[in-house]
Amino acid sequence: MNDTITVISLTPSGLRFLDQTRLPRETIMIDTADYRIVIEAIRSLRLRGAPLIGIAAAYGLTLAAREWINTEQSDYDLFYDSMCSVCDAFAATRPTAVNLFWTLGRMRKLLGRRQSPETLTTVLEEEARALHADDARRCTAIGRHGVTLIPPHAGVITHCNTGALATGGDGTAFAVLLAAHRQGRDIHVFADETRPLLQGARLTMWELLRHGIPATLITDGTAAMLMRQGRVQVAITGADRIAANGDTANKIGTYALAVNAQHHGIPFYIAAPLSTMDMTLQSGDAIPIEERAGEEITRIGDTWIAPEGIDTYTPAFDVTPSELITGFITERGLLTPPFTETLHDPHP
Amino acid sequence: MNDTITVISLTPSGLRFLDQTRLPRETIMIDTADYRIVIEAIRSLRLRGAPLIGIAAAYGLTLAAREWINTEQSDYDLFYDSMCSVCDAFAATRPTAVNLFWTLGRMRKLLGRRQSPETLTTVLEEEARALHADDARRCTAIGRHGVTLIPPHAGVITHCNTGALATGGDGTAFAVLLAAHRQGRDIHVFADETRPLLQGARLTMWELLRHGIPATLITDGTAAMLMRQGRVQVAITGADRIAANGDTANKIGTYALAVNAQHHGIPFYIAAPLSTMDMTLQSGDAIPIEERAGEEITRIGDTWIAPEGIDTYTPAFDVTPSELITGFITERGLLTPPFTETLHDPHP
Repeated sequence: MNDTITVISLTPSGLRFLDQTRLPRETIMIDTADYRIVIEAIRSLRLRGAPLIGIAAAYGLTLAAREWINTEQSDYDLFYDSMCSVCDAFAATRPTAVNLFWTLGRMRKLLGRRQSPETLTTVLEEEARALHADDARRCTAIGRHGVTLIPPHAGVITHCNTGALATGGDGTAFAVLLAAHRQGRDIHVFADETRPLLQGARLTMWELLRHGIPATLITDGTAAMLMRQGRVQVAITGADRIAANGDTANKIGTYALAVNAQHHGIPFYIAAPLSTMDMTLQSGDAIPIEERAGEEITRIGDTWIAPEGIDTYTPAFDVTPSELITGFITERGLLTPPFTETLHDPHP
Repeated sequence: MNDTITVISLTPSGLRFLDQTRLPRETIMIDTADYRIVIEAIRSLRLRGAPLIGIAAAYGLTLAAREWINTEQSDYDLFYDSMCSVCDAFAATRPTAVNLFWTLGRMRKLLGRRQSPETLTTVLEEEARALHADDARRCTAIGRHGVTLIPPHAGVITHCNTGALATGGDGTAFAVLLAAHRQGRDIHVFADETRPLLQGARLTMWELLRHGIPATLITDGTAAMLMRQGRVQVAITGADRIAANGDTANKIGTYALAVNAQHHGIPFYIAAPLSTMDMTLQSGDAIPIEERAGEEITRIGDTWIAPEGIDTYTPAFDVTPSELITGFITERGLLTPPFTETLHDPHP
């Protein structure tokens, strides 16, 4: 099976990306020159995964710049204001993953150069491509550093999706799994299905299958039992935002997994690029947590699975306190406690 | 809203029961005089819940006895053999909940009386009705004893379904919630949706709504976050089988919930009648755990949520070790550690 996949790419005519809401049953590519379609795609999770959202926003801004120079005058100030509005619109899509804001910050900085809209459009496009390529290199480095933490024949549990579908390269936690598999470590992956939107079942299992990595799908509530049975040696997930003390926001259910890992004496790693770290927040308490529509847990496809008119609580993320985290696998290597020191000075 | 519900009842012409797989969208009653339909209903979870399965099997055997005396000769030995085969067929439906075997044991004992098939059919029917009424009384007593453990204004988390849909009365854990609500304790219930078959979302939320008990639906992976937020004061679930040392088999996900309750210093109670206790098993390691079809986690309704051809692990139950259990709420009161003593001599 061909294990390469183009999740997102800028073309001369626009942006081409995979609609992840249709996986695993359908592989549908969306082609658009309209940045508004990209905004909708992020909001509706056609494009998701903390690093990928950042990349998509950078490309989206490039589309907006192309559109502007095709239709408007060449006034810098008007261009600047228009592009800043587009940045704001991307920033308003999803609040938790910090990579989005990190990327938009870099793009805004470039917009501050007083150059012609034509020139700046080229600059933005080059920066978006560079961010994409840079993320791919970070993924590879994360895999290289992380693989040393995976014992031979290990059972490895993961949560949500952190692969090519979530990043600009091989993934974060997924890059570690992939590297371990390619090195012949004979690992077996247990993928949490990851309710409510089932990114583990729909996306991670699809990626694992494509790469031929031995894997088993479980419900989120089965992880603890597997740990007790001694079938899990390592737990590893990605992250959406890491505070300065190491507290980590990631897909809802990650915290419960970390508590269970600690209870069973299993190391629990977060794999993430440094762009996921938010040193402006002292602890996880300050991380904004997105709450999604109740429908995400009362309906699946066309099937209603709960009575009408009920109350729901549907945070998309939770925060795992740093004391449950064994270490952060970054592109610069493993960062271990005390995180207040190591996160600030990551193997410079 | 009418809060009474007939989940199962023996009629002159057969058995009438609610098809729980159709809830919450449709309330479909099934009428049958054929015990084979009852066997299929238990196997396919149209009838489910540890105590209710036992009651359904008792009624099902009654249907078989009625059928036999309508069509066969009145030879005791033939009748006995035939009824034992039917007991075996019911025993083969689901392996974990012990109430089924406890009930069938009582029915087999009655069959040992050398009486006419006609007389024995009446005896079986009376016993089935008595078991049903007895379970209802046990539920009420569980509610009465359990309510004292629920502080005013408590957030109470529960897993799977343990109400009228699972028992012959008000339920086990659910009876405690109901009693607390009726006593005006101003509780708020958090219901785990309970993957894979969503008994929490489909059934518990439906029952909570009928009784007007304030409640919020969450995914299983959200429980830990709620606990950390201080919104949960008590966790309470039912049980499918309790070993002599207090290790408890219950719906998959219960163990993870118990680990998280302990981590957050939240009391974790099991509410169950004494018929759920299996003193023949020294520990939970000996409890047989049913594994269900992989399709239960790869498909919901008509929606496929995972790629084809993947490996799955789908235990229907897990075992919570006794050290995570604060106490057992039984019809005879609260049993606390050391369980090896209190379970053997439950407030006689």
